[in-house]
Amino acid sequence: MLAFTQTEKNQSPALQTLPSPTLGEGEVIIQIKAAALNHRDVFISKGMYATIKYPVVFGSDAAGLVEGREVILNPGLFWGENPGFSGPDFQILGMPRAGTFAEYTALPAQYVHDKPTHLSWIEAAALPLAGVTAYRALFTRAGLKTGERVLITGIGGGVALFALQFATAIGAEVWASSGSDEKIAKAIKLGAAGGVNYRQTDWYKNPALNPGFDVVIDGAGGESFGYLLRLAKPGGRIASYGGTLGVVPNFSPQILFWKQLQILGSTMGSEQDFAEMLALVNQHQIRPVVDSVFALKDADKAFQRMEAGEQFGKICLEMG
Amino acid sequence: MLAFTQTEKNQSPALQTLPSPTLGEGEVIIQIKAAALNHRDVFISKGMYATIKYPVVFGSDAAGLVEGREVILNPGLFWGENPGFSGPDFQILGMPRAGTFAEYTALPAQYVHDKPTHLSWIEAAALPLAGVTAYRALFTRAGLKTGERVLITGIGGGVALFALQFATAIGAEVWASSGSDEKIAKAIKLGAAGGVNYRQTDWYKNPALNPGFDVVIDGAGGESFGYLLRLAKPGGRIASYGGTLGVVPNFSPQILFWKQLQILGSTMGSEQDFAEMLALVNQHQIRPVVDSVFALKDADKAFQRMEAGEQFGKICLEMG
Repeated sequence: MLAFTQTEKNQSPALQTLPSPTLGEGEVIIQIKAAALNHRDVFISKGMYATIKYPVVFGSDAAGLVEGREVILNPGLFWGENPGFSGPDFQILGMPRAGTFAEYTALPAQYVHDKPTHLSWIEAAALPLAGVTAYRALFTRAGLKTGERVLITGIGGGVALFALQFATAIGAEVWASSGSDEKIAKAIKLGAAGGVNYRQTDWYKNPALNPGFDVVIDGAGGESFGYLLRLAKPGGRIASYGGTLGVVPNFSPQILFWKQLQILGSTMGSEQDFAEMLALVNQHQIRPVVDSVFALKDADKAFQRMEAGEQFGKICLEMG
Repeated sequence: MLAFTQTEKNQSPALQTLPSPTLGEGEVIIQIKAAALNHRDVFISKGMYATIKYPVVFGSDAAGLVEGREVILNPGLFWGENPGFSGPDFQILGMPRAGTFAEYTALPAQYVHDKPTHLSWIEAAALPLAGVTAYRALFTRAGLKTGERVLITGIGGGVALFALQFATAIGAEVWASSGSDEKIAKAIKLGAAGGVNYRQTDWYKNPALNPGFDVVIDGAGGESFGYLLRLAKPGGRIASYGGTLGVVPNFSPQILFWKQLQILGSTMGSEQDFAEMLALVNQHQIRPVVDSVFALKDADKAFQRMEAGEQFGKICLEMG
């Protein structure tokens, strides 16, 4: 089969012909129809994780066929028994296990779910990893409720956009932040009540953000994260699913304890999170935002687009 | 009546004769038998809060008599309807309302509770504010359970010592940190399994702290707080009730989301927290640790002892 792969560190990822996957006990083989990129794929291609096992077949997200059944894959495998955090066996499809940027992949049958019927192959492929990450951060961790005000930072990324769509679907009031006015305008078209450009001086003092937020969803960290504590209402919950801007240098314990905030780390999601996320998407007929679609043979161009960081929505791959 | 008071900013607190309190609707008058200091009293005496109303009668903690009934006072007034955080009417006895460093004080009757019978006047007076703060941080917020490992920082302070005693009482494994080996030794006598001196280089790498903590209780903030994230187990809860060391410059979102930690701000406690704390103290016959006892007329010496920061346990006042 064809697969987008990296056989050793520092080697450029490339399309290669590999043997089709062999099946372990209880596993099924999936013919991939479409896949989608995550930052994780780029990080792996650059050797940025401590323990990368080669050869890598990239890709966590996909939709496809199992003996004629239209399916979507849950890429979060072997979460473990504690719903509060993933156990030692947890892994994400696409390293060490061969991933979805290929004609076929194999998975234990319980990680294969019915594809939402309102979604195209591409839309379905766009959903899994970012969707479950947004769901867990927003609901399982931060406990967002109808009518609450939620701020979603860095709108345009996959997780942030699903958080926007999910929060809007349940009737929360969503605000978005971005470094791009164009992305904020798009977020408002998707249902956001408003937005703020964090490139403006003292953006966190913008009166439009008053009276603050019940919930904040952030994937950036850095200095801006410190300001999120100011923007939270008393009793507010701030869920963090990433830290691309690194260490927070201005974290105030005074604001934390005085407003009795909750700062909640969140990553990926459990089997239950995934099932609940799919149910929400089906119930509200939510359609993932697709930024762009590349053929599998042009996967390198998809990686370049993700590195450029200008996407609004998911970057997808179409097979065969 | 005699009261320890400050009539305007920058004036030295002093013992003065004031009119006895007048009773509002539903209030009772309490004859104070003993009282106890909190950092709050020192902060008020230095004008460190934004809105101080003069004259101040200091004191949040007390035990005393209401028409012959032996009582202990809940100093956290008008918490409000949301158990998650205190509402706009919340106030702490001892400013703006006249406090307990006096022969008499007045309170709405629902804030007067039966004094635990196993406690002396002094011990009972030592309990309220620090006790309810420790209880809320440890149980209501961090949800500590029997058998879990908990790290309590800055052992010697009132809240930290109650957290140690409460956690030990329910069968948690308690570790303590301090800048003083002597205080650590005292903590071990009180039931701690061990301790670590944070003045040692790389104290947070001490193998004795492995395999980390389910719960951490901190009142300091600062750079050490950043290390607490490393010391938490996956799924760990870190409750913060203070920030005497100020802003945290090294807060890592990567550790936060990867271990799916919860960072929980906590301050004082609700009426329910107070009632549950009293029940725990009665059930386990817990006796507050008393550092020292001063006569009301020597209250200035009690303030000096608190400012020196060398106490281990509560600094108390005995009335006439």
